[in-house]
Amino acid sequence: MADKKMVEAITSMDVDFAQWYTDVVKKAELIDYTSVKGCMVIKPAGYAIWELIQKQLDGMFKEVGVENVYLPMFIPESLLEKEKDHVEGFAPEVAWVTHGGLQPLQERLCVRPTSETLFCDFYKNDIHSYRDLPKVYNQWCSVVRWEKETRPFLRSREFLWQEGHTAHATAEEAEARTIQMLNVYADFCEQVLAIPVIKGQKTEKEKFAGAVATYTIEALMHDGKALQSGTSHNFGDGFAKAFGIQFADKDNTLKYVYQTSWGMTTRLIGAIIMVHGDNEGLVLPPRVAPVQVCIVPIQQKKEGVLDKAYELRDRLAGSFRVKVDDTDKSPGFKFAEAEMRGFPVRVEIGPKDLEAGKCILCRRDTREKLEVPLEELEARVGELLDTIQKEMLERARTHREAHTYTAADMAEFEKLFNEKSGFVKAMWCGEQDCEDKIKETLSVTSRCMPFEQEQIADTCVCCGKPAKKMVYWGRAY
Amino acid sequence: MADKKMVEAITSMDVDFAQWYTDVVKKAELIDYTSVKGCMVIKPAGYAIWELIQKQLDGMFKEVGVENVYLPMFIPESLLEKEKDHVEGFAPEVAWVTHGGLQPLQERLCVRPTSETLFCDFYKNDIHSYRDLPKVYNQWCSVVRWEKETRPFLRSREFLWQEGHTAHATAEEAEARTIQMLNVYADFCEQVLAIPVIKGQKTEKEKFAGAVATYTIEALMHDGKALQSGTSHNFGDGFAKAFGIQFADKDNTLKYVYQTSWGMTTRLIGAIIMVHGDNEGLVLPPRVAPVQVCIVPIQQKKEGVLDKAYELRDRLAGSFRVKVDDTDKSPGFKFAEAEMRGFPVRVEIGPKDLEAGKCILCRRDTREKLEVPLEELEARVGELLDTIQKEMLERARTHREAHTYTAADMAEFEKLFNEKSGFVKAMWCGEQDCEDKIKETLSVTSRCMPFEQEQIADTCVCCGKPAKKMVYWGRAY
Repeated sequence: MADKKMVEAITSMDVDFAQWYTDVVKKAELIDYTSVKGCMVIKPAGYAIWELIQKQLDGMFKEVGVENVYLPMFIPESLLEKEKDHVEGFAPEVAWVTHGGLQPLQERLCVRPTSETLFCDFYKNDIHSYRDLPKVYNQWCSVVRWEKETRPFLRSREFLWQEGHTAHATAEEAEARTIQMLNVYADFCEQVLAIPVIKGQKTEKEKFAGAVATYTIEALMHDGKALQSGTSHNFGDGFAKAFGIQFADKDNTLKYVYQTSWGMTTRLIGAIIMVHGDNEGLVLPPRVAPVQVCIVPIQQKKEGVLDKAYELRDRLAGSFRVKVDDTDKSPGFKFAEAEMRGFPVRVEIGPKDLEAGKCILCRRDTREKLEVPLEELEARVGELLDTIQKEMLERARTHREAHTYTAADMAEFEKLFNEKSGFVKAMWCGEQDCEDKIKETLSVTSRCMPFEQEQIADTCVCCGKPAKKMVYWGRAY
Repeated sequence: MADKKMVEAITSMDVDFAQWYTDVVKKAELIDYTSVKGCMVIKPAGYAIWELIQKQLDGMFKEVGVENVYLPMFIPESLLEKEKDHVEGFAPEVAWVTHGGLQPLQERLCVRPTSETLFCDFYKNDIHSYRDLPKVYNQWCSVVRWEKETRPFLRSREFLWQEGHTAHATAEEAEARTIQMLNVYADFCEQVLAIPVIKGQKTEKEKFAGAVATYTIEALMHDGKALQSGTSHNFGDGFAKAFGIQFADKDNTLKYVYQTSWGMTTRLIGAIIMVHGDNEGLVLPPRVAPVQVCIVPIQQKKEGVLDKAYELRDRLAGSFRVKVDDTDKSPGFKFAEAEMRGFPVRVEIGPKDLEAGKCILCRRDTREKLEVPLEELEARVGELLDTIQKEMLERARTHREAHTYTAADMAEFEKLFNEKSGFVKAMWCGEQDCEDKIKETLSVTSRCMPFEQEQIADTCVCCGKPAKKMVYWGRAY
């Protein structure tokens, strides 16, 4: 039965990308739906990807001095309300706890949608002197936002993430940390997830509730839509003033701290699916593949085949995440299943290979096959995984570049968004009116003002007034 | 200011153990209190212990075939109510979400106090055939129980834990898994936390809401009180029948699955504090010490001292978790701080040591000092950490044995609980009346019916009727 499900073709991504996505998350057994509307079960194959993301990102955090903590999941209503912009941004989409056991609570508690207010409350008690700074804390947890429309990994009422929250003695140090963490995110996406990103700043309209500046990394999915993949916020001293977080500086005067926050989420798994996946299913970059090498024995009942498969597994297991598919399904089913699940390398070994002292390696990303002498297996698998990781990034970059356009005026801009899908680079006057108008007419938003600016034209693509910034525009998840 | 706080003496554990505990969790900077009553901040020094617990316990889980998943934090009221005993056990202490954003919910959601019901709902959809069994899933998350009295790590409204939930084709397999996981817990406590535990079964009165049998590991704290440190439950097919979780067996008949669940929590950090701590503060077993070796330079302004300290750190860093305390505090303050935080080994290195090519190693657990030639440092530190880990377990075992008593009749039993503190082993008839009476008169509960039974007397310590089981009794956290 499981075999049959596996080989039923999934919807082609060219026919219906949204349905293709849903098919992949279900058939690769990443998630399951639940009785709780808008919330999902992350199944072993999905959670194992998250564990690899966590482990590697957390390692990068620790290299730049981040320490992990855990704060409560509840925020008293009065605490959420302390910073005006922040509460306005989040109050409409929080879940409220009103009863503890059989008793009504004296004050409602919201389930954290993000923890700026709790960290501020904590820092207010924990920071007294310049000696207590900086604080560079992070937590791994789940958060809740009461979304109306939900999609697995991309938008759900509860999702897993990390949220970093820092406090600094100076505005310069806070800004430097904001950018440093954005760079960590960008490096992580490129090196680990093989996803190239555009680094830039959000416009006033798109920035985080309560932030002075929000920086973002934006990735392009296979269908040409943008995905905001990580954000880093500089809060200046706004939260510090609202919460009274002061420290005695070296000159013995009381000063407010400067703060930042930054987060990435399980949404990254959605990005992996939509950047790398194909019509056979998931394609995982080796660095986040829970199974990097899947050994499929051919004619496994023939003498020596299974033993050899186990021997190869044991040889590879020291350096790679490897498994043998020794179920009683046919090799064809096993191939389809390994492809659906996105395992980067498949090893095929049968009686003839045994005789010839070789095996077949098959790449998931290109489906290329190569014959390898058994004695070279470890070295060749290692090289191949490196090659796959590298080429997946290059392929994604090529795709993005082929789907990034420039528009000098509104006619070009509209034509591009009507006929193509991808990023459009165009100039902007800096006024929200133009962003609003573009969103209304084309359902397109400003993704970011990239750090790498270009002078595409002298005037705003929308209103024709003098241009201030080059902006990446796109339709977004 | 930080120095001063550190050297203020903490309350002596012999004077007031509860206050000593509170002083240690605060002064070792493990936690902070929050605006959310009954919830705490786990600070970096506390969370790093939890990360080491997670990593090692998760490793042991994976060795016995456990896979990690993530299920929603919310449970619809109707789902919680499906298993009668279970809802009665938990409904009085759950937090209820009644509003999402500005709208009241159609059905109240509770914040998970434990996830049996969600796993059942998931398994009902995910299990069809004997080929889908067993399911051996676990999640790392936080849970909420609306406790009235709370204490850091021991009892709080929100705490971190892991919860394993399994489904099996036969009752025998479920029972075997329940015991297997209890053994993993016991091994973990002894080998990693250096805490010896008594393995046994809970009485009917003390078992988990909805379980057929609950097994437990019980540890003895320094003050002679017991701490339930991990539990493993066999549910039989009770939940399966309530939720309709059936599978087609090999003989083509529909059968209900048999289930288990098992959990350990951040309460283990409380156990570490109360088993190993002393009047100087925390004492951490090396395997869960975020800093295993703290190097304190003496006269650090003298030429070469700090450089040598960094050189030693770099030599040790490959094999151990090590740091140099190069702050401008005095060595005395640094010693006190390293002791308060429980670092297992302190290395002292000053100008005279430099000249003599040696350094001083100081054990946190015994405060013994030994002189070590610098060229032998790595080997000697490694040996010393192994010795500390081993001797901490032995010391805790000796303490427990010295505080474990036997009582043949009620007079002895009462005398022991009035004059001593510790475990008392005594016979029991098997009736809840006797447990109730003992709890009422002495505030003592049955901790477990140990797997290793002894025949202390022929009659129940309470009612004098024929005895069925030897029980460990104690006052508990």
